[in-house]
Amino acid sequence: MNIKDTHSNIFEEMTEHTPRASLQTMLIGRPLATEEASHQTIGKLVGLAVFSSDAMSSVAYGPQEMMMILVAAGMGGLRMAFPIALAIAILLMILVFSYEQTIHAYPDGGGAYIVARDNLGELPSQTAAAALLTDYILTVAVSISSGVAQVVSAFPALYTYRVEIAVGMILLVMLINLRGTKESGITFAIPTYFFLILMFATVIMGFARLLTGTLGSVVNPPAFETNLLQPLSLFLILRAFANGTTSLTGVEAISNGITAFREPRAKNAGATLMWMAGILGSLLLGITFLSVHIGVVPVEGETVISQLTRTVYGNRNLLYLLTISATTVILMMAANTAFADFPRLGALVAADGYLPRQLSVRGSRLVFSRGIILLAAIASLLVIRFEASVSGLIPLYAIGVFLSFSLSQGGMAHRWWKSGHLKPGEEIVEQGSTLHYDKGWKHKMIINGLGSLCTAMVMIIFAVTKFKDGAWVVILLTPALVAFFFTIRRHYARLAKQLSLENNPRKGHIRRNRVIMPVSGVHSGTLIALRYARTISDDITAVHISIDAKETAKLEEKWEKWGEEYRLVVLKSPYRLFLEPLLDYIDKLCAVAGPTDIITIIVPQFIPKHWWTNFLHTRTAEALRKELLHRDNIVITEVPYQVE
Amino acid sequence: MNIKDTHSNIFEEMTEHTPRASLQTMLIGRPLATEEASHQTIGKLVGLAVFSSDAMSSVAYGPQEMMMILVAAGMGGLRMAFPIALAIAILLMILVFSYEQTIHAYPDGGGAYIVARDNLGELPSQTAAAALLTDYILTVAVSISSGVAQVVSAFPALYTYRVEIAVGMILLVMLINLRGTKESGITFAIPTYFFLILMFATVIMGFARLLTGTLGSVVNPPAFETNLLQPLSLFLILRAFANGTTSLTGVEAISNGITAFREPRAKNAGATLMWMAGILGSLLLGITFLSVHIGVVPVEGETVISQLTRTVYGNRNLLYLLTISATTVILMMAANTAFADFPRLGALVAADGYLPRQLSVRGSRLVFSRGIILLAAIASLLVIRFEASVSGLIPLYAIGVFLSFSLSQGGMAHRWWKSGHLKPGEEIVEQGSTLHYDKGWKHKMIINGLGSLCTAMVMIIFAVTKFKDGAWVVILLTPALVAFFFTIRRHYARLAKQLSLENNPRKGHIRRNRVIMPVSGVHSGTLIALRYARTISDDITAVHISIDAKETAKLEEKWEKWGEEYRLVVLKSPYRLFLEPLLDYIDKLCAVAGPTDIITIIVPQFIPKHWWTNFLHTRTAEALRKELLHRDNIVITEVPYQVE
Repeated sequence: MNIKDTHSNIFEEMTEHTPRASLQTMLIGRPLATEEASHQTIGKLVGLAVFSSDAMSSVAYGPQEMMMILVAAGMGGLRMAFPIALAIAILLMILVFSYEQTIHAYPDGGGAYIVARDNLGELPSQTAAAALLTDYILTVAVSISSGVAQVVSAFPALYTYRVEIAVGMILLVMLINLRGTKESGITFAIPTYFFLILMFATVIMGFARLLTGTLGSVVNPPAFETNLLQPLSLFLILRAFANGTTSLTGVEAISNGITAFREPRAKNAGATLMWMAGILGSLLLGITFLSVHIGVVPVEGETVISQLTRTVYGNRNLLYLLTISATTVILMMAANTAFADFPRLGALVAADGYLPRQLSVRGSRLVFSRGIILLAAIASLLVIRFEASVSGLIPLYAIGVFLSFSLSQGGMAHRWWKSGHLKPGEEIVEQGSTLHYDKGWKHKMIINGLGSLCTAMVMIIFAVTKFKDGAWVVILLTPALVAFFFTIRRHYARLAKQLSLENNPRKGHIRRNRVIMPVSGVHSGTLIALRYARTISDDITAVHISIDAKETAKLEEKWEKWGEEYRLVVLKSPYRLFLEPLLDYIDKLCAVAGPTDIITIIVPQFIPKHWWTNFLHTRTAEALRKELLHRDNIVITEVPYQVE
Repeated sequence: MNIKDTHSNIFEEMTEHTPRASLQTMLIGRPLATEEASHQTIGKLVGLAVFSSDAMSSVAYGPQEMMMILVAAGMGGLRMAFPIALAIAILLMILVFSYEQTIHAYPDGGGAYIVARDNLGELPSQTAAAALLTDYILTVAVSISSGVAQVVSAFPALYTYRVEIAVGMILLVMLINLRGTKESGITFAIPTYFFLILMFATVIMGFARLLTGTLGSVVNPPAFETNLLQPLSLFLILRAFANGTTSLTGVEAISNGITAFREPRAKNAGATLMWMAGILGSLLLGITFLSVHIGVVPVEGETVISQLTRTVYGNRNLLYLLTISATTVILMMAANTAFADFPRLGALVAADGYLPRQLSVRGSRLVFSRGIILLAAIASLLVIRFEASVSGLIPLYAIGVFLSFSLSQGGMAHRWWKSGHLKPGEEIVEQGSTLHYDKGWKHKMIINGLGSLCTAMVMIIFAVTKFKDGAWVVILLTPALVAFFFTIRRHYARLAKQLSLENNPRKGHIRRNRVIMPVSGVHSGTLIALRYARTISDDITAVHISIDAKETAKLEEKWEKWGEEYRLVVLKSPYRLFLEPLLDYIDKLCAVAGPTDIITIIVPQFIPKHWWTNFLHTRTAEALRKELLHRDNIVITEVPYQVE
């Protein structure tokens, strides 16, 4: 024991408790000490792998969901797919320039929540938090569902088990995250680059066969799921565009994770962002172009990636299987990213007092376990509710993403405006970054302002065109969440005020401690309680609720013998009630008690050795305790006595 | 307040608490004071109505279930129905003579449990208890299911709702019993005599039309449900007989309820028993004879009573509907009888310590509410499980009945043997009755012995022939229940020994009370707890589990200022565990504590005003309390502080 006397009466020592092995340690590993937290940094190549899985994996569902809308207007509709993909690529460019600026302005991490908190205030930042948390939940649900769709495309027999597989995958990712990511970046790099290589191989091979005229069309394409032919209206195009924008989910990831990069980290992170955008853009355009060309039929049963890959490689051969596996794995890694971000943001919001404090407590493996479990639970419920259908989940997805994009870029624009109004050399230290004069502020404000405007427009397009498909849920949920966050915050604030020592004058010393001891019988448990009662006060009253006159007579006789001449009050209860007369009696005592009086209720608590025997006893002590906890100036003392 | 000083230090007063109106009082009536219990007695005519509904209602399913077995051997099989009914009537006669003797020997109530307890010992009496409790549950399930079958026969459209109707009926009877039977015997007499008049009218009318040759056969008989024709084997006949014996369930009711009769009560009860047997026997024979004659098809869809009645009255006219209603009502009254008997027996067994004591506590309406609710719950589950099918439930039914018959009659036979070995004028006072020499003991012993033997044989026939249909459940369950009763008894016995003041030497006075106060922060709640701690001991140690060094430094500073120079021990917890290091610390203190030392743990219990805010706080105080309750020589004191 290592006792250190820091003050006159304060002793510090290290606990000798070491955690034991259990089912939990088997599943998620031995507990980690607080000081074991690691702080490694990564380069651009690994950084790309770590932070891009979410963005790049979106090509597995973005183009498909876009084409699914267009196909309602027949093959003519599908011809609009490439132009729409181009528009999305342009939007991506705007976003990337916007975020590049965020990275340099917030080298300590510039997530939408932090940027909105610094530059827009409480309400927008909590709105961003609500949007982001919703977004992370949907990232898990959508990515995993799309991953399962890839697996099912390769092995159609698994279709009936898709929900079970999806929930299983979520639980797997949850377990991995509960263990904590002590893994080096390499663990991420291998599957990400494996995916990139195979995906590019597919696209390049596709174009090569297209140019040589050997590509052809999808063999045995799946049957159309929609047979209702709609005209190619603007509304349809906008809906398709909205669905396609889900390809852009995840591009903000690098700006959240700047601290993980090697110095000069802003520069490295910025370069990585550019690379990621280039890759994402070319895959998006390439996949869309080839898919339309070979006549892919966008359906839930077989994914666009699967139809494209088997057409490019001739049939379901090894290369096909490798590509599908790589796609599934990258989608799981996208879910994994959300598992890192959700609990971290939850902890940040909780630390600010807008979410339950418990979310900011690190679990045995130094991760925010409660957030991880919460995310897995909600995402699983969503997957079950939507039967692992990507198309079913998509309408809930992108609103949160684009709302947070827009708030983040709007915050940045406001930041440049503030920066433009500083004197050169002047500095303002804000919670998330340090602000100083920037002479290019006008130019930068326009870029971020444009980003904010474009993403806000996308959000509105999405909300309007997908409203009745499910977007209404998110539109109602987000303000409800924000209101909830503020309610929580108000609770904590009031609590802090009530607990504050400065606000509350100290109460005077207690002068009189009246002890009330309910007794149902006089037995050794009663005497143990009485023995204790004597040590804390001389003013002891035993109270017996009399239901059966014979029993009471016996009790009175025993009390005469064993009660050490303490007072016994017998309350006759004609309606055979126990709790109510006792509480009435205590209330009467409370009513006459002075400010320096206190009443201690000593409850002899009967603790059976075997839990199953509990049902053999009326648990009145427990009920009494629960009632008394809510009364003022009453202390409850439980004297437990263990019995067989 | 009415204070009466009975002893030097014992004060008796009447509680002023009067129960309030609530949903409960609305449903089951205002609470009754203990002294409001009524003690009215009844004559033979009303006694027959009160105690015979169970027995007489069995004619609604006994003949039907017997014929259902026989019909498997075709119309030839059905010709055996009347001879079997005759055999059952003879068995009824034997039983009645047997029980007549019980009534005179046990004028204070001679149920199988009491008779077996007095004359056979602990194991047989508990076996009788298990058998009877099972029997009562099945009486409810079978009677209600048969009642629903009558309703469905009249209104076939209700067939799909039969389970819901049955559960609804059970709940209705439960509610009536929770209100308590303050009703006079007339409430029972009206529907019972209504049933008897209509049923005899049906049988007499049937014979009249038979003799005048106008009876004919069932018009539009239901389709046969069994199409597998079996030979008419002895096994089949025995199975049919076994099913038919369910008509005899309930004949013991009068012997349980002798105390309710007017003096001379044994004589009145005996006469009532004879009347009941006569009525039951004639109905059984009459219904069976007529049903076979008119070619009733015994199926679940339409009851035998329904087919017989509509044939006798020509069609589904008013008389038919009245008869069916009367049958339904009498079946509900049979269930009602079980609702009176089950809780009463449960209370008796509980008072003897073989069932949870709570079952012997009277509820707000002076009835054993817990037993009533338990019965309703189990019976409802059975009805749901067997989809209100009488045929499905029958195989579980009669074993318990005949086991208790046999034990009761066996006990009586042993009683006569004992009585024959007393000297004239000698008396033995037993728990249930007074035993004296009876010169007719040999004769009486033979009658009861025969009764015991016959019922034992019936039980064996039933167990063997219905084994695979479901009787095996009861054959396994009964000994399991008995074993369970003995386990409960052993628990109570050990407990009583441990609580006994004679066996346990008194502990010496407590010399030292060490107070440990876990603190997570220093706030007004902490100071309220510290204020209390000062009043009970000078030996106070605050213990803080340090998870975050910064937080701890702040806490130490505050303690310096507000801690009144009491000791603060800071336990550093590297694995961020809270409970375990604290428990380890307490364990260490316990290890060095002497026999006259006690440790008080003062837990500042945070009580939020609104329950919903609970989720915003880690409930460590609760977890700590639960762990500590199981440790010796530790007292837990909760100082609650109410906050917003």
